[in-house]
Amino acid sequence: MNKLAKDLKHAILDSGLKDGMTISFHHHLRNGDHVLNMVMDEIAALGIKDLTVNASSLFDVHKPLAEHIKNGVVTTILTDYMSSGLGSFISSGWMKNPVQFRTHGGRPADIENGRTPVDVAFIAAPACDPMGNLKGSEGRSACGSLGYAIPDAKNARYVIAVTDGLRPYPLTGWSIPETDVDAVVAVESIGDPAGIVSGTTKITRDPVGLRMAETAVDVIRASGLLKEGFSFQTGAGGASLAAAKYLKDVMLKEEIRGSFGLGGITGYMVDMLREGCFESLLDVQCFDLKAVESIRSDPRHREISATHYASPFAKSAVVDSLDVVILGATEIDTDFNINVHTDSDGRIMGGSGGHSDTAAGAKLAMIIAPISRARLPIVTDRVTCISTPGSTIDVLVTQKGVAVNPKDEELKLRLKDAGIKVMDIRELKELAEKTSGAPLKPAIGERVVADVIYRDGTVIDHIREVRA
Amino acid sequence: MNKLAKDLKHAILDSGLKDGMTISFHHHLRNGDHVLNMVMDEIAALGIKDLTVNASSLFDVHKPLAEHIKNGVVTTILTDYMSSGLGSFISSGWMKNPVQFRTHGGRPADIENGRTPVDVAFIAAPACDPMGNLKGSEGRSACGSLGYAIPDAKNARYVIAVTDGLRPYPLTGWSIPETDVDAVVAVESIGDPAGIVSGTTKITRDPVGLRMAETAVDVIRASGLLKEGFSFQTGAGGASLAAAKYLKDVMLKEEIRGSFGLGGITGYMVDMLREGCFESLLDVQCFDLKAVESIRSDPRHREISATHYASPFAKSAVVDSLDVVILGATEIDTDFNINVHTDSDGRIMGGSGGHSDTAAGAKLAMIIAPISRARLPIVTDRVTCISTPGSTIDVLVTQKGVAVNPKDEELKLRLKDAGIKVMDIRELKELAEKTSGAPLKPAIGERVVADVIYRDGTVIDHIREVRA
Repeated sequence: MNKLAKDLKHAILDSGLKDGMTISFHHHLRNGDHVLNMVMDEIAALGIKDLTVNASSLFDVHKPLAEHIKNGVVTTILTDYMSSGLGSFISSGWMKNPVQFRTHGGRPADIENGRTPVDVAFIAAPACDPMGNLKGSEGRSACGSLGYAIPDAKNARYVIAVTDGLRPYPLTGWSIPETDVDAVVAVESIGDPAGIVSGTTKITRDPVGLRMAETAVDVIRASGLLKEGFSFQTGAGGASLAAAKYLKDVMLKEEIRGSFGLGGITGYMVDMLREGCFESLLDVQCFDLKAVESIRSDPRHREISATHYASPFAKSAVVDSLDVVILGATEIDTDFNINVHTDSDGRIMGGSGGHSDTAAGAKLAMIIAPISRARLPIVTDRVTCISTPGSTIDVLVTQKGVAVNPKDEELKLRLKDAGIKVMDIRELKELAEKTSGAPLKPAIGERVVADVIYRDGTVIDHIREVRA
Repeated sequence: MNKLAKDLKHAILDSGLKDGMTISFHHHLRNGDHVLNMVMDEIAALGIKDLTVNASSLFDVHKPLAEHIKNGVVTTILTDYMSSGLGSFISSGWMKNPVQFRTHGGRPADIENGRTPVDVAFIAAPACDPMGNLKGSEGRSACGSLGYAIPDAKNARYVIAVTDGLRPYPLTGWSIPETDVDAVVAVESIGDPAGIVSGTTKITRDPVGLRMAETAVDVIRASGLLKEGFSFQTGAGGASLAAAKYLKDVMLKEEIRGSFGLGGITGYMVDMLREGCFESLLDVQCFDLKAVESIRSDPRHREISATHYASPFAKSAVVDSLDVVILGATEIDTDFNINVHTDSDGRIMGGSGGHSDTAAGAKLAMIIAPISRARLPIVTDRVTCISTPGSTIDVLVTQKGVAVNPKDEELKLRLKDAGIKVMDIRELKELAEKTSGAPLKPAIGERVVADVIYRDGTVIDHIREVRA
């Protein structure tokens, strides 16, 4: 007795998938993922229509989803992030129903509390046994943590593991146990290893980025949080990684032993673990091969579920215990609201991911961004889209100076005492406009193409169609 | 921000526990457990009444529960096992409501499917951080696996971790994550290490036991299951452990590499892992210190939840993939029904635990028992209580011969071919009666003191009051 289905088609038939149901996917294979497209093609061939796709993130590799939208196979999309390939298509107004953007914490919360039930979850499994015990850290398509897939598997009515790494029973060290899996499908390849780690960015060499990174570390030191037990998350952007590098140097020099590094984990965070800056890494997603190797072999480097990472519905999540997070922005306004969903032209090219979750949880939520990019101001009067409310952001670091949210009076004094150039955010805005000219108003229509749903379930903004 | 309650009393008050609710406990600290008594005394002092106690098992250390029953603090008990201390009290008819006996697989199933919801779960945590990430493998009260506590924590409305091993955040390698925990209470001691491993039994030196153990291994070899990929569970009784020892010798000599050992894990199973008989151990409960040390340090030795172990409500459980289980019995009847709940006098002194779950799952479910004990026949016409239905038992090994369930015609032929002395179970019964005299009918009354609920949720027997 085992759960091996003959092929993907039969697994889908066995699942009882019908018109109007919801299917889910996770994004650990990132831009190398083969599973979503493979599944959607099979579903389309079966003539199933009007599906809701709940995917933790969507990358350019998923552009073929546009055809399934046009053909009516997919009529609603729920996701936490959508890169510009599909985002641009959505922004043109092709979908009848608005995309529902959630956060990496809000998505598992809504799956668990029953707001967004999943009928059939598809789990890309780099290693899996015939009963469905599966993990991400081994196999030719190894991607490390499967944190975002865990709530899907736990809560979906039917769970199909798709694997190119079938192993003998029992596979131990599972990310997801057999108790949650209905069927296992063996396929030739679930992903392209090159694409799986495509998200990796190297430390910036741009002098503006390096200056911001240095300032970011100065701000962390001045905040008073950089001490024994310090915890930290940073994104995979070039300047954020540079900040991690500078931070490591300071921690080693000053012999500060932190407690944990969190998040999507890069090799830079692995270095910090190995060199003694942290006791552990808590990993919901690996960004590069060094992180994958580390989670496979180092017991201090642990997988966490998306729920454990960031769910506001859990009894607590790791973000609630986080000291400092460094985040990016495509726009920030004078109320410290952040846009990470759209480009300045209003087209979808991103999403919150864990942005609002970590900003809400961390004691110090820091944005690193230049005041302008490609002659477009980043600091502005009003963001095109509110991804993360300004009330959860503490400080903006730019190449021209640092702005502190007025709610953080004490932090402002600390930074000034440390000799950091603190400016009013409106000054930074004016500086940006002086350099780049006032921002062009994008050609935005009336029709809503996406709702931005904050981690507590409230709709905090709408994204509207962009006229060509 | 953390979840540390001032003390146990305040944690209980914060939980909103009220008259008529259900509280739960797990039994990894076995006869050394301090937590259940400590909690019950606090609850009684708060004047809360009419509670249902859902405990995965109850040992002699929990005899003080009798007073709380008499005082009306506890009016219903749900458990999988009850040793004679409390069992004898229950059998005397002290409780208004019958005890509900479930199995180690049926209990988590009914917690998860909502039949037996838990209001407040108390988790004995040998190591725990202030946010509730907790585990059993470290600390002065280390007990290894916390498998039975995992479904309680996941499903209870409110979860209180009681610990004598507070650790800095984040404790990694958690058995239960902070996402499931509401409050943490630090106490002086959660258990007596000597009692925690009190369940350990040494390999029998009794020649009858050794003979049965040898025969058991002969039966396993003859069954055809002892080959590459073999999986195995055995209890902690003396003859079962002796069988494990003989089995190890055979596997090593014949270079048979099994896949996994399952269950409550003893040091004998750890030896089998270390010497290469198994690829892994899947552990829902550690029976001795060697097992605790192994689960802490050897990544091939893995904790599994009670759900993963044996739940019939899960999409599959490990018992479904098990080859051979060796089980004990206080009585077995000519239909192969097994009693592990009552002694021959009809008094409660045990329970199914994982007995019926493994019997149902394993390809070969074997009972080892002498035909009589202390001049009382074990093989009988009709068991006093059906714990495990005969339809799930394949073979009985006694010191006088082996009986095969008539449903297993092929097995019977295999055993005969191997020169094993196969007898009709009725012959064994007659032999038992000849040796010991016909069994005395216990002085059983009418009143039902316990229901035996099979893993599928059906009541398969009642246990009645025993008149003094």
